[in-house]
Amino acid sequence: MRAIEEQAKQAFEASKPLAFLSSAVKNAALIQMADDLVAHAAYLIEENAKDLEAGKKAGLTAALLDRLLLDDWRIVGMAEGLQRLSTLADPIGEVITGWTLPNGLEILKKRVPLGAIGIIYEARPNVTADAIGLCLKTGNSVVLRGSSTAVHSNKAIAAILTTAAEKAGIPSGAIQLLDDVTRQGVETFVKLNQYLSVIIPRGGADLIQSVVRNATVPTIETGIGNCHVFVDASADLANAVEIVFNSKVQRPSVCNSCETVLVHEAIAARFLTQLAARLSPAGVELRGCDKTLAILPTVKSATQDDWKSEYLDLILAIKIVSGVAEAIAHIGQYGTLHTESILSQDMAAISAFTTQVDAAAVMVNASTRFTDGGEFGFGAEMGISTQKLHARGPMGLPELTTYKYIVIGNGQVRG
Amino acid sequence: MRAIEEQAKQAFEASKPLAFLSSAVKNAALIQMADDLVAHAAYLIEENAKDLEAGKKAGLTAALLDRLLLDDWRIVGMAEGLQRLSTLADPIGEVITGWTLPNGLEILKKRVPLGAIGIIYEARPNVTADAIGLCLKTGNSVVLRGSSTAVHSNKAIAAILTTAAEKAGIPSGAIQLLDDVTRQGVETFVKLNQYLSVIIPRGGADLIQSVVRNATVPTIETGIGNCHVFVDASADLANAVEIVFNSKVQRPSVCNSCETVLVHEAIAARFLTQLAARLSPAGVELRGCDKTLAILPTVKSATQDDWKSEYLDLILAIKIVSGVAEAIAHIGQYGTLHTESILSQDMAAISAFTTQVDAAAVMVNASTRFTDGGEFGFGAEMGISTQKLHARGPMGLPELTTYKYIVIGNGQVRG
Repeated sequence: MRAIEEQAKQAFEASKPLAFLSSAVKNAALIQMADDLVAHAAYLIEENAKDLEAGKKAGLTAALLDRLLLDDWRIVGMAEGLQRLSTLADPIGEVITGWTLPNGLEILKKRVPLGAIGIIYEARPNVTADAIGLCLKTGNSVVLRGSSTAVHSNKAIAAILTTAAEKAGIPSGAIQLLDDVTRQGVETFVKLNQYLSVIIPRGGADLIQSVVRNATVPTIETGIGNCHVFVDASADLANAVEIVFNSKVQRPSVCNSCETVLVHEAIAARFLTQLAARLSPAGVELRGCDKTLAILPTVKSATQDDWKSEYLDLILAIKIVSGVAEAIAHIGQYGTLHTESILSQDMAAISAFTTQVDAAAVMVNASTRFTDGGEFGFGAEMGISTQKLHARGPMGLPELTTYKYIVIGNGQVRG
Repeated sequence: MRAIEEQAKQAFEASKPLAFLSSAVKNAALIQMADDLVAHAAYLIEENAKDLEAGKKAGLTAALLDRLLLDDWRIVGMAEGLQRLSTLADPIGEVITGWTLPNGLEILKKRVPLGAIGIIYEARPNVTADAIGLCLKTGNSVVLRGSSTAVHSNKAIAAILTTAAEKAGIPSGAIQLLDDVTRQGVETFVKLNQYLSVIIPRGGADLIQSVVRNATVPTIETGIGNCHVFVDASADLANAVEIVFNSKVQRPSVCNSCETVLVHEAIAARFLTQLAARLSPAGVELRGCDKTLAILPTVKSATQDDWKSEYLDLILAIKIVSGVAEAIAHIGQYGTLHTESILSQDMAAISAFTTQVDAAAVMVNASTRFTDGGEFGFGAEMGISTQKLHARGPMGLPELTTYKYIVIGNGQVRG
């Protein structure tokens, strides 16, 4: 078993030549990687079966086993992701801005890779391929700390991608899958400031909080979403029912799904009756405030915990509010800076909401589900940042870069 | 003594209305703050005298006492800084970019404040005024953790600025100077993720490293500079002597001064003789590699420690290298990602250096001293970031902001 420090150091060293590799080489590598994944599908499925077998023995839930599963369709999905990355514009080398100083110095602000990026994630083998592709495309080396539950699958994917990448000219060492997947190993990993420029945890709230609490390497918090939809008095109610339905039901297990709907008291009776009728056949459990219960008597009573909960499930909390100010205050207290939506035709309410709500994305008359790199048109996504430093909201390729200033003179000294 | 959590919470609460305060109010506050500082100069000097008195008793060095000193000239300097901030464009509200999706959703990426910013700094009272001004201008509230050595000066400045700011319409609580300046207090402070969006340590290497090691709040590392000048074989030698002189001597105590000069072996004898003649009258102590000693026999021998040292003093290390590749490798090993300069007329060498050297600023035929917010034309500076996340190099007003996505729809749901 190689030591974590050793693997991180190799990634750091490889990040130096990788930082100025041409787009052509990086894109050729991505295509080779995609091809080789598909070519080795049978091997991947074989290795994945070992993880599934162990997972079943360990009593993993059906949902977790499904996440862990690799089949032909999912392998093609990973390959298509890599292929698509090869077609995107390379952000590296972009001159973001530039200007000339009165003393003749020319300043260029140029986009460059971050260096070596650490990723800590749960038992989803597709993240292995995604993360490797995103990091290589942006000229970064990558150190992956996957779950012990997916160890055979991850090793197989990383081995295939490493061979393909090096064949195409990616510096050796640029892709590191940590051998050490112990719990203590994570503590070492998140403190390797000398080698890692950033660590991105991808997974549930516990994983992310534990990384943020322990890391000395700068981290990017991702993906915790206690998202709200506020239905204003002026909302188109039929449309509002569809937006809340979509925000809750279309994919309840993800961070941009809606957890609480805030309803203006003036339209609450009419709206909630329609909403309950729409959500009930989809099996959504409702939990309401006292005023909601007066309208929908069969609904369960919501507690303080409901306002805080990221259910990630077919459960929706409902609170009736006196107006946009109370909606903003509720979101200020319980929101997680992810996505908040207002449904309204009233410009004053919309303006108050978009200005005063603090979130990575504020939607107006649209589903919360649109906060997504793919939907935003980024072509790829590393996750959704819920912190304010560096990147906020969906992170595409530019969010995996930094910049340097290049200052061109002809002998200037400071007076 | 108010508890740290309480003060941070107040700053957090104040950051909400402050985030959308008009530029007019913020600028009026800055002008009022500048006026009131000057109006209370006698009081400030009186309070500062208490710190100086205590500092003398505690045996502070002359340099530290000088840093601590407030006189009329320095008070006017602080006021001018605030005044100048009032004239700069407000970055808040800028639409950084925007686009329309095929489904009709309009996305605006809008610049917004970070929230509450924590600053930890040493006994320089002027930082109190600077940091308050920069944070308010950018719509952020600020929590200052100053040095116990400057406690009277800091309290006086913060009190005057708070009164002025609130008189002009800044929300109460937006400016917090921590009462608790104990060492344990810092440990509490740097973990207040629920209130603080970022902590910026401003000071020496020990302060910064201790904050980075202990903080769970995202931090921005600033100001450690082991900066190099590489004098290539093709450099204009007379000019190179002046640039190295300026980089070392103009202000040796700051992070963008040069600590090691790397000299191409082909011109080493000629260049070093000229350089020594220029630096010697300025009292610069030279420490050279073995090859340097063969040219300048009276020079002290450099050790491994010299290559690592940020002297912040009139000391210069000299290493003769075989060419740009060795210069890049040396910088890769010992640089601190701050500022690196190449003096050359050779486009291939310049291109290799600017591409391969990893630093916030890479200078070509210019002094390292130009890495500075003022020199870059930013009009103000919070420090120089030596990390890669969020901000790199001199941090002006935009670097104290983040963004949010505002997504305008007319009923869109995700398919």
